[in-house]
Amino acid sequence: MRMAPLPEGHFIVIEGGDAGGKSTQVTRLVDRLRDSGRDAVATFEPGATEVGRVLRSVVLGENSELDPRAEALIIAADRAQHTAEVVRPALSRGMDVVSDRYIPSSLAYQGRARELGVDVIRRISGWATDWLEPDLVIVLDVPQKIAAERSAGRVTGGSGDRMENESVAFHAAVRQAYLDLAERFGWVLVDGSGDADEVSMRVWKAVTEHFGRSTV
Amino acid sequence: MRMAPLPEGHFIVIEGGDAGGKSTQVTRLVDRLRDSGRDAVATFEPGATEVGRVLRSVVLGENSELDPRAEALIIAADRAQHTAEVVRPALSRGMDVVSDRYIPSSLAYQGRARELGVDVIRRISGWATDWLEPDLVIVLDVPQKIAAERSAGRVTGGSGDRMENESVAFHAAVRQAYLDLAERFGWVLVDGSGDADEVSMRVWKAVTEHFGRSTV
Repeated sequence: MRMAPLPEGHFIVIEGGDAGGKSTQVTRLVDRLRDSGRDAVATFEPGATEVGRVLRSVVLGENSELDPRAEALIIAADRAQHTAEVVRPALSRGMDVVSDRYIPSSLAYQGRARELGVDVIRRISGWATDWLEPDLVIVLDVPQKIAAERSAGRVTGGSGDRMENESVAFHAAVRQAYLDLAERFGWVLVDGSGDADEVSMRVWKAVTEHFGRSTV
Repeated sequence: MRMAPLPEGHFIVIEGGDAGGKSTQVTRLVDRLRDSGRDAVATFEPGATEVGRVLRSVVLGENSELDPRAEALIIAADRAQHTAEVVRPALSRGMDVVSDRYIPSSLAYQGRARELGVDVIRRISGWATDWLEPDLVIVLDVPQKIAAERSAGRVTGGSGDRMENESVAFHAAVRQAYLDLAERFGWVLVDGSGDADEVSMRVWKAVTEHFGRSTV
C-alpha cells in the first residue's frame, strides 16, 4: 500500500497508556511514510523543545506535591511551545508530523484519570495550540496485564517516572478513558498487543485507510 | 489606625509594573498587619514554591523563543501550585496573605501587553486557582519615567530578567493595562511615587479603609 504524495503535511498522533509501545510505533510509522515517498518527522510530548525539557522534568520528576491543575497547565504549556516551535513549522513545510502524545493524552490523564474534567482540559489545550487539530489519532490499546509486563521488563528496572509509578487503578482509568473518548472524538483504536511488526502493520493499515478515504 | 482582629485571613495582592516598589510594600504591609495584631505572611509570584522556582526560571530566563501562550500557561501553573500549596493553607489557618502579584499581573502582562486577551487569561487563571479571588488588589502606579530610573538604579546593574528587558512600549502597555483594568475589576490605585515611607502610608490607608468598610 502506497499513498500518493499530498500537497501538505498530515498531523498524526499516536496515543495510549504507558508501555503501550507508542514510541516504537511512531518510529515505524515515520519510516513507512518516508518509504512511501513522503517527508515525515517524529516528535513527542512532553519535552520535545528546550523549554519543554524543563517542564517535563517538573511533571515527571519527584514532585509528589504537584497540584493536579498545575500539572495540567504545565502539560498545556509544553504543548503550546511544541506546537508553535515544532509541529506547525513542519506541517507548513509540507512534512507529515507523527507525535507520540498530544491533546488526547491530557483528556485521558488529566481530564479523566485526575478527574479535572474532559471539557475544560480540552478548552485549555485547544487554546494552547491555537486550535490545531490532528488529522488522525490512533490509540494503541493494550490490555492492562500486557502493559504491566512490558513496563516491568524495561531496562530502567522498575524505577519509572512520576506517571509510570501511579497506581494500577490510575492506569486502568487511563485505559478506560481512551476507550470511552475514542468513540466521542473519532480516534481510531488499534490493537497494541503482539509484537512490534504486527502492531506496525495494523497502524499502517489504519493510516492508509484514513487518508485513502479523505484525500483520494 | 488599627484593625480589629478578624476571624479569618484576608488575601491582599500588591500589583503594578516592574520596579514599582511592590516587594518593599509587601514587606511593609505585612509588618503593619502584624503590628496591628494580625497574623500575616508575605508571598509572591512567580516562584514561591519548589515547583514554581523551576517554572519561574523558564519564564524569566533566557528563552527568547518562548511562545506567548506557553508563557501564560506556565504562569498559570505557578499560580495553581502557589494557591494550593501556600495561599489557601495560610488563609484557612486564619492568616492574612499579602502577595506580590497574582491574577491581575496576568491580565495586564499576558492579556493586554502580550495581546492574548483579558477574558481568556482570566478564565485560565480562575480555573488554575479554583476561583480564589483576592479580598483586595492594590495597584502601585508609578509614572514610566520614575520606574525606568528605579530600574536603572538596581544593583543588578541593568542586566534585568526577561520581563524587565522588554521594550519601553511593552512596559507602557502594562501600565496602561493596570489603569484600564483597575476600573473594570475594582482594583485600588495607589500612587507609588515618592519614598517607601510615603507609599506605605498610602497603602495602609487603602487597606484600613477597605477592610474598615467591609468588616466592621
